[in-house]
Parts: sequence; C-alpha cells; structure tokens
Amino acid sequence: MGGDLAPSVTVEGALRAHRERGLDVLLVGDEKRLNGELRRFGAEGELRVHHASEVIEMGEHPAQALRKKKDSSLKVCFDLIKAGQVAGMVSAGNSGAVLAGALFILGRLDGVDRPCIGGSLPTVKGRAVLVDMGANVDCTPEQLVQFALMGEVYARKVFGVPKPCVGVVANGEEEGKGTDLTRKAAAALRTDKEVAFHGYVEGKDVFSGEFDVIATDGFTGNVLLKTAEGAVWAFGQLLKRQIKSSPLASAAALLMKSSFDQVRKRVDYEEIGGAPLLGVQGVAMIAHGRSTARAILNALSGAELFAQKHLEEDLGAAARRAAALFTQRAAS
Amino acid sequence: MGGDLAPSVTVEGALRAHRERGLDVLLVGDEKRLNGELRRFGAEGELRVHHASEVIEMGEHPAQALRKKKDSSLKVCFDLIKAGQVAGMVSAGNSGAVLAGALFILGRLDGVDRPCIGGSLPTVKGRAVLVDMGANVDCTPEQLVQFALMGEVYARKVFGVPKPCVGVVANGEEEGKGTDLTRKAAAALRTDKEVAFHGYVEGKDVFSGEFDVIATDGFTGNVLLKTAEGAVWAFGQLLKRQIKSSPLASAAALLMKSSFDQVRKRVDYEEIGGAPLLGVQGVAMIAHGRSTARAILNALSGAELFAQKHLEEDLGAAARRAAALFTQRAAS
Repeated sequence: MGGDLAPSVTVEGALRAHRERGLDVLLVGDEKRLNGELRRFGAEGELRVHHASEVIEMGEHPAQALRKKKDSSLKVCFDLIKAGQVAGMVSAGNSGAVLAGALFILGRLDGVDRPCIGGSLPTVKGRAVLVDMGANVDCTPEQLVQFALMGEVYARKVFGVPKPCVGVVANGEEEGKGTDLTRKAAAALRTDKEVAFHGYVEGKDVFSGEFDVIATDGFTGNVLLKTAEGAVWAFGQLLKRQIKSSPLASAAALLMKSSFDQVRKRVDYEEIGGAPLLGVQGVAMIAHGRSTARAILNALSGAELFAQKHLEEDLGAAARRAAALFTQRAAS
Repeated sequence: MGGDLAPSVTVEGALRAHRERGLDVLLVGDEKRLNGELRRFGAEGELRVHHASEVIEMGEHPAQALRKKKDSSLKVCFDLIKAGQVAGMVSAGNSGAVLAGALFILGRLDGVDRPCIGGSLPTVKGRAVLVDMGANVDCTPEQLVQFALMGEVYARKVFGVPKPCVGVVANGEEEGKGTDLTRKAAAALRTDKEVAFHGYVEGKDVFSGEFDVIATDGFTGNVLLKTAEGAVWAFGQLLKRQIKSSPLASAAALLMKSSFDQVRKRVDYEEIGGAPLLGVQGVAMIAHGRSTARAILNALSGAELFAQKHLEEDLGAAARRAAALFTQRAAS
C-alpha cells in the first residue's frame, strides 16, 4: 500500500513477477482495493491477498506509526515474515518505517550493531554495492566496517563477484585523507585478511568499476547516490536543449534514441528495483517511492534471490568479524 | 611551477590571458625555464618573470614544505601579494600548500574562523557556488554558516545573482533530516534575515539551478563534486560503448558531435578555471592539477574579477554575521 503509485502499480508489478518469473506473491493491504486492482488487470484470484486495514503514510514518524497502526500493511507484512509465512517483503512506502519495522519486528542478526541499506550503483563494468545508502546518518568506525563486510557478502553471494574489491569513500586516495571515521574504519579493514580492501575510493572512481563494495556513512551514501542521479539528469537536460537548437542534431538524436534508451535502462533504478536491508533477521527490500511496475517486479526478484541465498548466516558472521577487528585493536 | 603540466601549459595560459584579455601576468618560478617557455611561444619579454628557485611538489606536506622551501614559487607568490606587488595569484600545484600559504602568509580576514574553497558547479540554469569544496574535512555549524554566507557574497558579487538562494546539503529536504552539524547550521541560517535560505538541498537538486549557493563540509563537498564528475563520465562511457555497437548510431553521433562538445564545454572545469579561497586577505585561485592552458586562462580571469570586486570587506562582514547568529542563539 505504500509508495507514490500504490496500490495500482504495485499490484501490476506483483502480477508481472508472478506471470513472468513465476514468483508466489502475497499482496498485503486493503483487500477491497487490492482485489479491485487485480480485477482491473483481469487477474482476480491470481494472487492471494492478505487484508490489512491501515496504511503508514510517507510523512509519518516511522517508529510511532508502527506502534500506532497495528494493522498497517507494513506491520502485517513484517508479522508474516516473523511467522515464517512469507520469505521476504518489498515496500515502496515510508522507508524509515520499513527500517524501523525490520529492526523492531524482525530484529537484528546476532552481532550486528546497526543494519544498513545496500544500494546498487551502475558502473562502467557492472554493478557496485553502496553501503550504507541512508539508514545511518551518523555512524561509528565499527559500524562502517560492518557495513563494508556485509556489503562484501552481498556482492559475493548475490552479484556473484568471486573476490569483491572493497573501498571506503573519502576525499582523496591517500591514507591521510578522510575524517576520523574513515581513517579508523580503513585502518581496521586493512587488518582483515579475508577481504580485498583497496583503501579509499574518491567520488570520481565510484563508477569506474574498480570497486565492488563502496562503504560510507548513510549521510554521504545518500548524497553520493542522489548527486550521481542529479548530475546525469542535468547532463541529459543540457544535451537535450543543445540538440533542440540544431535541426541536424535533432534528426541525429532520433537515430540514437535506442542507444540512449539502452544506457538509461542500464543506469535506471527501475532495473535495480530495490535496496536490501543488510543485518536483519529476514528479507526486506526498500523500493523507490516512485517505483514503476517494472521496478516492483525487479525488487520482488531481488527479494527472492536474497531469500534463496540464505545470507543471514554469512551477514551475521561478517558483522561479528568486523566487531572482532576492533576488539583486537583495542587489546593490542 | 605547480601542476601536472607546468610550467609549459601554465605559461601558455598566462600568455593567452595577456594577449586575449589584456591581463598583466607575472610568472613566478624558475627564471630560466619560464623564459625558455616564453621563447618557445615567441613571447620573450612579453610577460615579466619573477625568479623563485624551488618548487613545492604535489605529494609534499603543505605546511612543512612552505616552511622549508622559502624560495618556492608558491611562497614567493604569496609574499608578492602580501607586499602589494600583485593583486592575486593562481596555482595549479599542491592545493593544500596554497591553502596553508594563504592562511599563514596572507592571513584570515577579520572574523573568519576557517577559510573555504568555493567551487563552481554547472547547473541547468547557470552556475552554483559549492562551499566548502574540500579545505575543511571536519567543521562546526558556525564554520558551515560562514562558508554559506561567504559563498552568498561570491554568488552575488562575482556571478551577479541579485538574491542568491542558499541551501545546506543533506539526505532529504525535511528539517529533521541531516546530521547534528547540518541541523544546527540550518537553524542558524533560518534566523538570518539578510539571506534567502531555502533549507536543505538533496544531491539530486544540486544541479537543478534552484540553489545558487550549496553549503556543506569539505568532505561532503569533495565527494559531491567528484561523484558528479564520475557519474557524467561513466554515463558518457556507457553511451559511447552503446553507440559503437550500432553503425547507424555511430553515424548519428558524428552529426551530434558539436552538441556534445558544447555541453562538455559547459560542464568542464576548463571553463571554470579556478576555485577561489574565501576568507583570506587577498586573492588566491586554486586551479585543477591537470589544468590546460584554457583552464589557466580562465582561472587568471577569475582571479582578476575577484580582485576587481574587492570582496574582502563583504566576505569578512558575512563571516562576522555568521558568528553573531551563534552568539545570539547562545545568549537567547
């Protein structure tokens, strides 16, 4: 029920996930409206519906809304995961509430201090995982190392990168650069024998494909991701305007439309679909608030893949290894 | 003498600034090499040369190098400003050393806690000032407000924006978003009657042209600027690859080359030329380490404009006003 285009587009995406990829999707929310949407798509009874009478709105305070709205679609979704009735969930709604629900209802994995959101960044070679994408605006060096090592598990198990290259975002490549937070996190990561830590990654190298895991605090992660979106959008706007001023270029642009579309498709959040929560007991995918049906479809596929890989054990182990790096350092 | 392509490209840029824009440029550095370069361009005696026997290299520790190399081109440059013999300087060398030289030799303007670097961001409507671009990795709310108000002076006086719109970078638009730093800075800016403060600016809106001054700490500023560069570069790489895979698109791309070039020119650092230090007694422009002759030419023009506008008084007043916002808040 959450998201700017819900429930219509959400139902369409779920239906496509079922029809095109054979996923068993349970719709959680207002029974009447959801069945109405299914009817509209000629799919009455094709997906099961689990009734939930309330909706947490975008502007609501996450934790308060969760406590108050006991029959909200989000709360009921998490209860279903907790009860083992579904393998995971996708929401395009209030992302703070998804995070709060995952924390309070599912709970953290043993050893995890703070769960984080794993974003997916398109690079010139493939994809990189951005951790944290925005869950933890402030964090400690130990938490940042947990994000990095959990991100490494995700890149390895879900993206299939054999030995993911890990970097910490900073304002320069040299060890002396960065903040107290990044220097302490990088120092700890350097002592971990199990990951390929390649030091600091500058903004300009985030998309080069050299790094598979880009670790940073949630504030910087959010700014980084949105700045990249904004810069590409602005470049496109300037180019469009320039092309329009020339009839020759306008004609040429038509011939290049499919190339543009291919690249747009490659970098679009639609194709990424959702950002997983890393560090909680269960599978929760945060989808973009303006998710299209295709984005919902891909987020559901992402949730299925996450659930199939049974990452919980590895993610917990990664978080505990991160914590141990700091205990060792404090002891030595 | 500093910069990856110095002194050849620097001399060429200086010569063009003299020939094309009538600037009176003094070259500071190794007399023999600089005169050799002038000869190479058929311009012996066309620009004055001030000898300096040493060079601060890119990797050197800024403050130490400045103390040790008393006859470095950078140190001598600042001495010339201090002595009133030149109106300002441009360097494509070690930017940390430029900052240290400006701080220790020129000194801060009265009321300025920390000088910052003002970056220039291309937007879909024009340009925005990014403060701080990287001088202060950690900063206090009061310092951040000083950056914002000094940036406002720069946007107004140099870019000619009558009432610059000021924003603080955060991970969302709502007041509750951001960190302790951004919330305190934004709260103080809201109480300032003299500027048009429009609250938080998200990464995606940095290039929309809605904001003329984008204020943030130097860590985030650096990441933001370089991420934007990296994202546009990556988008271009993906597009190039896609176009190459289609003969039709390749042909069309040739017809669009001039449009691409126009946009690239608009967003390129070459056209921006240099980033001014805001908050020091004098004019110092930091140019990109890989500055081309055109970038040096534009940085010299930027330095001349800065010097002509006599910004020192306004910048100092802005910094003192920022400090007063915090004193009032503490007292109330």
